[in-house]
Amino acid sequence: MTLSLYSDEQYMQQALKQARYALAEDEIPIGAVVVMDKQIIARAYNQTEKLRDVTAHAEMLALTAAANFVGNKYLADCTLYVTVEPCVMCAGASFWAQVKRVVYGAAEEKRGFRRYGNLLHPRTELATGILAEECAALMQQFFTQKRK
Amino acid sequence: MTLSLYSDEQYMQQALKQARYALAEDEIPIGAVVVMDKQIIARAYNQTEKLRDVTAHAEMLALTAAANFVGNKYLADCTLYVTVEPCVMCAGASFWAQVKRVVYGAAEEKRGFRRYGNLLHPRTELATGILAEECAALMQQFFTQKRK
Repeated sequence: MTLSLYSDEQYMQQALKQARYALAEDEIPIGAVVVMDKQIIARAYNQTEKLRDVTAHAEMLALTAAANFVGNKYLADCTLYVTVEPCVMCAGASFWAQVKRVVYGAAEEKRGFRRYGNLLHPRTELATGILAEECAALMQQFFTQKRK
Repeated sequence: MTLSLYSDEQYMQQALKQARYALAEDEIPIGAVVVMDKQIIARAYNQTEKLRDVTAHAEMLALTAAANFVGNKYLADCTLYVTVEPCVMCAGASFWAQVKRVVYGAAEEKRGFRRYGNLLHPRTELATGILAEECAALMQQFFTQKRK
């Protein structure tokens, strides 16, 4: 598959790269990037085990890094790409940051935010299912390994 | 009013002290403490302006500090005291940390988590309305000053 430059798929590939770093460190493999003006301004992967901190989800770390980069806690011109549907905590963080778009790959029916209704900011657009199979496959690989 | 030692009111007074630090720094005045075995193991106040980071809510900072103290991301023996009803993000964080109890002072009907249903962990107990008037008064003081 050829990915066009600046496409959602292209940025999700970068989020997947982050997720693979998480997998390599035995973390639940979720990755995120934040994009502004077509540029990736923050990259992060889940580090809850390494940091022993439940708040260290990929999205949280990426949003904090993006705010540091922009010098503004509001990220109204930014898109958050994340490989898996954000949880309630991360959806809440994106609400406060008023991000322009949230784009995720694989759905997370049990822990994803969507079962609680629309927790995103009214101005935040949502796109879903981008490279969903690759994103979900990483998760399956992790949990299959864990069960062994 | 005399406060008995180890009462919810006593710990909420400490959370209020944190909230006053926030007020002094022109932050939305919300404070939190985390208690384990009757001891306060973490204290924090909202620092979203200072850190330019929407994730720097009092609860988030307190939960992260508590996890660092305990050396465990799970806080199943801990109570989170916070002066104002947590938002969705902070409720989500308390879910992941599996805190034993969440105790808040003033309700927050617009941005509090409760309008979205019970976002807390099934094992988390909830107590509300502790020193609610003092907690709410600090918030009112802040927003009245802002409007001037």
